[in-house]
Amino acid sequence: MDYYSKQISKLIEELSRLPGIGAKSAQRLAFHILNMPPEQVDELAGALTDARHNIKYCQECFTLTDTDICPICKNKARDHKTIMVVETPRDLTAYEKTGKYEGVYHVLHGAISPMLGIGPNEIRLKELMSRLTKEDIEEVIIATNSSLEGETTAMYISKLIKPTGIKVSRIASGVPVGGDLEYIDEVTLLRALEGRTEL
Amino acid sequence: MDYYSKQISKLIEELSRLPGIGAKSAQRLAFHILNMPPEQVDELAGALTDARHNIKYCQECFTLTDTDICPICKNKARDHKTIMVVETPRDLTAYEKTGKYEGVYHVLHGAISPMLGIGPNEIRLKELMSRLTKEDIEEVIIATNSSLEGETTAMYISKLIKPTGIKVSRIASGVPVGGDLEYIDEVTLLRALEGRTEL
Repeated sequence: MDYYSKQISKLIEELSRLPGIGAKSAQRLAFHILNMPPEQVDELAGALTDARHNIKYCQECFTLTDTDICPICKNKARDHKTIMVVETPRDLTAYEKTGKYEGVYHVLHGAISPMLGIGPNEIRLKELMSRLTKEDIEEVIIATNSSLEGETTAMYISKLIKPTGIKVSRIASGVPVGGDLEYIDEVTLLRALEGRTEL
Repeated sequence: MDYYSKQISKLIEELSRLPGIGAKSAQRLAFHILNMPPEQVDELAGALTDARHNIKYCQECFTLTDTDICPICKNKARDHKTIMVVETPRDLTAYEKTGKYEGVYHVLHGAISPMLGIGPNEIRLKELMSRLTKEDIEEVIIATNSSLEGETTAMYISKLIKPTGIKVSRIASGVPVGGDLEYIDEVTLLRALEGRTEL
C-alpha cells in the first residue's frame, strides 16, 4: 500500500484487524476518521484506551466492568436471590435489554467444550458455586446458548447444583416469536414440541 | 444503558458514531476491544490520533497525506505529465489498486452539484488549473464518478481545459467486466452502446 502515506496505512491496517471490518470498510472508516473533527477522534481514541485499561471482572458476577462491582450487582433494587447464568457479557446485555429480568447474573466467560478442550475449570464455574454457598440464593436460571456447548454446560451446572437443593431452571428453547415454522430448522421444531406447555 | 459501566457505555457510544457501525456492531466491537491485549488497543488509539492530527493535503495533488508531498507525487518513476482527476482520495486508491496507472492524480474533494449548492469554487479546481499552467502536462484524464454530479464536473473541467490545448479524456462508461447484461440498468446499457469501439 505505498500509495497511502505511512500514518494512513497504519490506521487502515489497525482498523482492518477488528472483527467484521474488511479491507474496504477499514479504508472507508479511515477516510471518515480523517474528516472527523480532531477532538472527536481524540474522544474515540480516549474511550478505547480508558475502557481497555480500566476494565476488570465484577467481583460478584464476573461481567466486564470498570468498577469493582458492576452496576447490576450494586443495584439494591434487584433480586439478589435469583442468578441467571450466561456465557458472555453480551448475553447478559441481551437479557438486560428486555428490561424484564429483575435478578442478577453470573458470567461464565465461555462454555464447556470437549472439542475445543474447554473444561469446567476453564470457565467461571467454581466462582458460581462459591456464590451459591456464600449468598442466599433461591434460583439459578441457566441461560447458556442453545448450542451443543451451551446445552452441555447447562446439564453440567444443573447436576452440580441439584444436590444443594437450590432451584435450577433452564430458559426455554423453541420457535422464536414471529418465526415462520416453514423456515425453522427441524431440531428447533422438535425442541418446541418437547417443550410444549398446556393451555 | 445503565447495565454497562460508564467507560464501556462511552466506548460503545463512540464506536456507534462511525459510519456503517450500528448499535449491535458497536457492542460486538467494544467487547472485542475489551478482550484485546492492552498494547494493541493503544496502537489502534495511537493510529487514530496520529493520522488525524498529522493529516494534510498533498501540496501537489491534494490527496490526504501526512507529508507535504504524497508518496505518489514524490515518486520520480511516475509519469508527471499525465494527471488523473478524481473526486476523492478513495477513488485515487481504487485506481492505484489496479497497479496499471503510471501517471499522477489531482483530487477535487467533491464534484459540482447545483442540487447540494457545490459550485466549481467549492472543489479543488483552481488548484488543478494552476498546475496545468505551472507544470508541463500532456494529458488530463477525468475520472470523476459516472453520476450526474461526476458527469457535470467532467464536462465543466473539459470545457475549462480545452482552450489550453492540453489533451483531455474521460474514462469509459459501460458494462462492468463480468456484468450480465440482463441485470444492468438501461442507462448503462445505452452508455455502453454509445461508447462502442470498433473491433
